[in-house]
Amino acid sequence: MELIISTDSATYPVFLANGATSQLNSLVSDRYDSIFVFADETVWHHHADYFNQHAAFDYQVFVLPSGEESKSFIVYEQALTFLLENQASRKSVILAMGGGAVGDLTGFVAASYMRGISFIQLPTTILAHDSAVGGKTGINHPLGKNMVGAFHHPQAVVFDTNYLLTLPTSEVRSGFSELLKHALLSDANWVEELLLKDSLDDLLLLNWELELAKGISVKATIVQKDEFERHERKFLNLGHTYGHAIEGVVGFGRIKHGEAIALGLVVSLLLSNQRKLAKVWTKKLCNYGYPTEFLFATPFSQLLSYIKKDKKNQHGELHFVVLPEIGQPELTIVTEQEVEKAHTLLLALIKEETA
Amino acid sequence: MELIISTDSATYPVFLANGATSQLNSLVSDRYDSIFVFADETVWHHHADYFNQHAAFDYQVFVLPSGEESKSFIVYEQALTFLLENQASRKSVILAMGGGAVGDLTGFVAASYMRGISFIQLPTTILAHDSAVGGKTGINHPLGKNMVGAFHHPQAVVFDTNYLLTLPTSEVRSGFSELLKHALLSDANWVEELLLKDSLDDLLLLNWELELAKGISVKATIVQKDEFERHERKFLNLGHTYGHAIEGVVGFGRIKHGEAIALGLVVSLLLSNQRKLAKVWTKKLCNYGYPTEFLFATPFSQLLSYIKKDKKNQHGELHFVVLPEIGQPELTIVTEQEVEKAHTLLLALIKEETA
Repeated sequence: MELIISTDSATYPVFLANGATSQLNSLVSDRYDSIFVFADETVWHHHADYFNQHAAFDYQVFVLPSGEESKSFIVYEQALTFLLENQASRKSVILAMGGGAVGDLTGFVAASYMRGISFIQLPTTILAHDSAVGGKTGINHPLGKNMVGAFHHPQAVVFDTNYLLTLPTSEVRSGFSELLKHALLSDANWVEELLLKDSLDDLLLLNWELELAKGISVKATIVQKDEFERHERKFLNLGHTYGHAIEGVVGFGRIKHGEAIALGLVVSLLLSNQRKLAKVWTKKLCNYGYPTEFLFATPFSQLLSYIKKDKKNQHGELHFVVLPEIGQPELTIVTEQEVEKAHTLLLALIKEETA
Repeated sequence: MELIISTDSATYPVFLANGATSQLNSLVSDRYDSIFVFADETVWHHHADYFNQHAAFDYQVFVLPSGEESKSFIVYEQALTFLLENQASRKSVILAMGGGAVGDLTGFVAASYMRGISFIQLPTTILAHDSAVGGKTGINHPLGKNMVGAFHHPQAVVFDTNYLLTLPTSEVRSGFSELLKHALLSDANWVEELLLKDSLDDLLLLNWELELAKGISVKATIVQKDEFERHERKFLNLGHTYGHAIEGVVGFGRIKHGEAIALGLVVSLLLSNQRKLAKVWTKKLCNYGYPTEFLFATPFSQLLSYIKKDKKNQHGELHFVVLPEIGQPELTIVTEQEVEKAHTLLLALIKEETA
């Protein structure tokens, strides 16, 4: 399947198929003076042979630590050093092979190396269907997630679903949250379908190629309207204000991004007076085995200190995306008390399900 | 005087006058939720009082080490930490007060903090008439100058010529090189006028407001045509391939940028078969006291290793800007041997003048 992403500043294809890696051959052919692969170390360990069977070009590989750890200043600087030492030029291209973290780090390296070179996203996780599209790149700061970065679009996204076959269950959970977010932002029937599944094993039976295409389409439509997140694009942050705070408190990389977003979605639904839907989703996420226990040992004040640093905030006010109706997101100002109330209610809902 | 810079992606004013700092009051009024000043420590030491007399708004100041030292990964990260600790938001603005280094570092911080916030350039040196305009920002890597950065335009440039009165002579020399470069790229009569001056004291008598306006206009015209340095903008690199290599070998910040460019311009003229002009300019730069002696202790092989990493290079070939006629720059491929020959000739010309 091929989708086209089109914004004011860039237009590029998304290839989505089992075996899509072969598309790279025509994409890179004769266009670049050197090719670099930035690969997640776990992905590279499992899939280097598969990649080499499909890739008919020379390249140099830079192996990145798995997960959020790669989105640090240290790895950022190491990656730039690697490119300089290997004479990468403005005509070089970097292929980002891995989950969202590899894509985010690689994208920011590509955005800033010599003030911008080309890169291609090769997402290997469900979660990365979200981050690979739309041009957001970045790294984490100890004081906040994705606080440093750039808007920099890839030349193409090559999504080979072959890689999904070896995903650990925590990655399936993580990716499913972003998919559910895209459903919540767009289509009540789709939400209902997704919430029909009873167990994680049922989730695995989804037609992932189709689901990912739907998720990417929702994102593409929003990014097309508002590339630089001045208006509608903020809606894609549904569940992320609280979710990012969880990641900050637990420590980046110590919980999967989408596992934190799953809980953030509950808080968003509660802030939207969607208590019934919040309850249904809490029940499911407990069934699917999303981590929740740690939350009872997390003081709200710690979460709040991260929420206060959210990029959407202005003039010291907390801005949350809420969802009065499925498919009708809004940006609203909420008080600290309202967030705390939602947090307490989330804990109560979890307790109910796991009692 | 007010000039307007206009590119495909941004339009902004340049205010150029003694006392221009007052323009800031209307520029920042009610537009931002907080204001940060990133100031060169030497500039701040001398001019904080003057700044406070003109600036009628609250701000927080982050003092940067003087000169190229501030363009390091360490200072970059410290600056981002400072912004996060002080709750800078996407609605904040940073004022970059200092020479080109402060502008470059601050611009990259502004480009990448939360994927881009506003900044305003407050250049305090002659040299910064070049760097403050055009949207190039960046920091240095131990393996090469300006290797990491972004294109990010300021909201405005406020150039208060009051600050020029306390410039050290090395800064006058440094700035004059970029001014001469702008003259070489545009106008033979202007070059002749500039090369009439016999001593550094004569240089100080130039009408700097007018000269800077002319320099900024040349740059603005080129940047307007080619914002992202795909074609014409490369011409602004005249003298910089060799100049940057000097900075790399000597150590960033241990020689003023424009003092290195002065020598780079000679090499460019020699590569352009402009031997007469190269000789005239070498004579002047020796008269003006530009540092040259260190060059005799610098092995060409060291310079070459930096030249090979120049951002303009492609497919392993060295690309230089040459000037077959004043006002008619071209990009050309040169061999290592040709560069070495020009380097040797430069040494001979200096020896002649200083014998």
